[in-house]
Amino acid sequence: MNRVAVHGVGTSRFGRQPDRDLLALAAEAVTEALSDAGTDSVDAVWVGTVFGAPGVAQRVLRSLGITEVPIITVENACASGTTAFVEAHEAVRTGRYGRVLALGVEQMSSAFSGPIVPDATDPEGVSGLAMPALYAMSASRYLHDGAVTTEQLAAVSVKNRAHAVGNPRAPFRDRVSVEEVLGSRMIADPLTLLQCCPTSDGAAAAILAPATGTPGEITVRAAAMRSGRVWDQSSAHVWGHDIVRDTATDALEAAAIDSIRDIDVFEVHDAFTIGEIVTTEALGIAAVGEGGAAVVAGTTSLGGAMPVNPSGGLLSRGHPLGATGLAQIAEITWQLRGQAAARQVDSARLGLVETMGGGVSVLDGNACVITILEAS
Amino acid sequence: MNRVAVHGVGTSRFGRQPDRDLLALAAEAVTEALSDAGTDSVDAVWVGTVFGAPGVAQRVLRSLGITEVPIITVENACASGTTAFVEAHEAVRTGRYGRVLALGVEQMSSAFSGPIVPDATDPEGVSGLAMPALYAMSASRYLHDGAVTTEQLAAVSVKNRAHAVGNPRAPFRDRVSVEEVLGSRMIADPLTLLQCCPTSDGAAAAILAPATGTPGEITVRAAAMRSGRVWDQSSAHVWGHDIVRDTATDALEAAAIDSIRDIDVFEVHDAFTIGEIVTTEALGIAAVGEGGAAVVAGTTSLGGAMPVNPSGGLLSRGHPLGATGLAQIAEITWQLRGQAAARQVDSARLGLVETMGGGVSVLDGNACVITILEAS
Repeated sequence: MNRVAVHGVGTSRFGRQPDRDLLALAAEAVTEALSDAGTDSVDAVWVGTVFGAPGVAQRVLRSLGITEVPIITVENACASGTTAFVEAHEAVRTGRYGRVLALGVEQMSSAFSGPIVPDATDPEGVSGLAMPALYAMSASRYLHDGAVTTEQLAAVSVKNRAHAVGNPRAPFRDRVSVEEVLGSRMIADPLTLLQCCPTSDGAAAAILAPATGTPGEITVRAAAMRSGRVWDQSSAHVWGHDIVRDTATDALEAAAIDSIRDIDVFEVHDAFTIGEIVTTEALGIAAVGEGGAAVVAGTTSLGGAMPVNPSGGLLSRGHPLGATGLAQIAEITWQLRGQAAARQVDSARLGLVETMGGGVSVLDGNACVITILEAS
Repeated sequence: MNRVAVHGVGTSRFGRQPDRDLLALAAEAVTEALSDAGTDSVDAVWVGTVFGAPGVAQRVLRSLGITEVPIITVENACASGTTAFVEAHEAVRTGRYGRVLALGVEQMSSAFSGPIVPDATDPEGVSGLAMPALYAMSASRYLHDGAVTTEQLAAVSVKNRAHAVGNPRAPFRDRVSVEEVLGSRMIADPLTLLQCCPTSDGAAAAILAPATGTPGEITVRAAAMRSGRVWDQSSAHVWGHDIVRDTATDALEAAAIDSIRDIDVFEVHDAFTIGEIVTTEALGIAAVGEGGAAVVAGTTSLGGAMPVNPSGGLLSRGHPLGATGLAQIAEITWQLRGQAAARQVDSARLGLVETMGGGVSVLDGNACVITILEAS
């Protein structure tokens, strides 16, 4: 089996770009990734997209002159991009293909040009359980239990937007205050507008190939995926906690890493503020019920002991579904190479990416992908 | 690396079933495949679907009690089902997972409840190049060159519908005559209604796991896939020929089989009559320009030297996109086990499945999957 390295990464611009189609977005990301890897060809392609139309992957790659190679489109909800990464990693690890492109792309502006209405044929659709409402239920439970305060929730947005000041690829990179976050329009009580990831279009890409042994090379220590996980409503934890915890266990075991404290930098799925708090608790960065306090204490800030979302996260980049996981991979790659400029985590050697996918029907199955990268 | 076997197969009913959703169709196929394999669990799932909504795979599997396993949805145009098979095969071959389900499912009645209109933003959409028109161009070229006659085209439908008489799973299993085929409504000149695969909803599934060495077990000799293939319009051959020829070369090489004549039974992609003729020529069953004559001569009939589509093919089963390739796999599995009853090919030991995918944009990339199964 091969040891696998990330040879190149790239992203498009992010943010609302209704005038740019999937081809334009993907071309921008793939062109940068190929250039970064110093190559113009790949042997196979996995594409993660949720709302990309059938056949779009072949068209996108054709527009870049990449033809005559296997192209497989995967869909795994919000974790589609990192699922493409997991599949590309497996193909290189087993020697199935030599150099593989993992691409994620989504045009959210056109997929959701109108209001998002929960599917009334779903049990949770009938209950109005759109994603903001689902996360709001977790936040309400935490507030009721005294496991978080509204100020701690807001602190996640304050931290991530402060991080984004140093990230020219984040479309939302103005600092915000706790007051501004809590004073913004209510979306799903207690989550206000500035606690929800904005609509964003974009693409991200990574080129994987066997490790060459070059010093500083970014290798893949683990690429763990779970899916089809039913939310156990009798669990002591809120939605999402258990699958993140278990996938993290898989990833640390695969990487032969004893403790989450050995990881230097994290990019996690902060689709909503409460999501980052639950995730850091599930990962073991903070104890359950102490994730909010850890944000306020600066533990998860740049300069803190366990920096989370130095890119600004989904709260600053937005969440173009298929692209999100690979944008996180790109950020961790830059961090481990020391290329993250104003948002650089000092001496980062091990980085972790976590992507959570809820499926359209969150009661019917969830997905989580956790990858661990290392600067060798 | 493991030798891989097909431990079980199953399909739903086929035909227009607008009242049955993806869950009902998939459940029927998976239940039969699990029962056939003598198991009630799998370690991972690949699902092939083109128009299945995001998240549908998790929901379908959940309804069958299959949770907590990785579920990956793949889309590769009309070859989505056999692409799921290729991925499942690779996972078992490399030891990534033990027992893997490959599932294909499509609800065409609801995906195409209105007229199918080519996308006017595509170059070929502007030209009206829907799939019937594309195949009709190949047929017109063949007619112009004297490489086929209208009667030979019709003979493909006559043969496959005669085969379907023995297939209780084919919704169209009445014999038709050359006169009836040629006299049916014109769809895209020269292709009449009875030369086009009908609209059909359905699902099909296969369970793959390492071979056990049991006599008679159905093993996978090759699972070859090409995609992202641009149609070279300067080729001496019509659309589809070259990619089928090259994928067949890959498959025969992987299986270490010297000649296509060693294969005892074929299921190929007869979405339109001309498609079967071009495919048999590309596979080397007949020389280029002689595929039509081979049909009339009975070479590709049950009882002939190289029987093609003993199930009745897509012309009798219809073409529920994601399900098609796995329905072909199921048929070849039954043939190699001697379970094909009235449509059984005598002493079949080696069988080949060919699925062609055109993508929505046929000029932007085509896909072909060819698998070779063997009764050991």
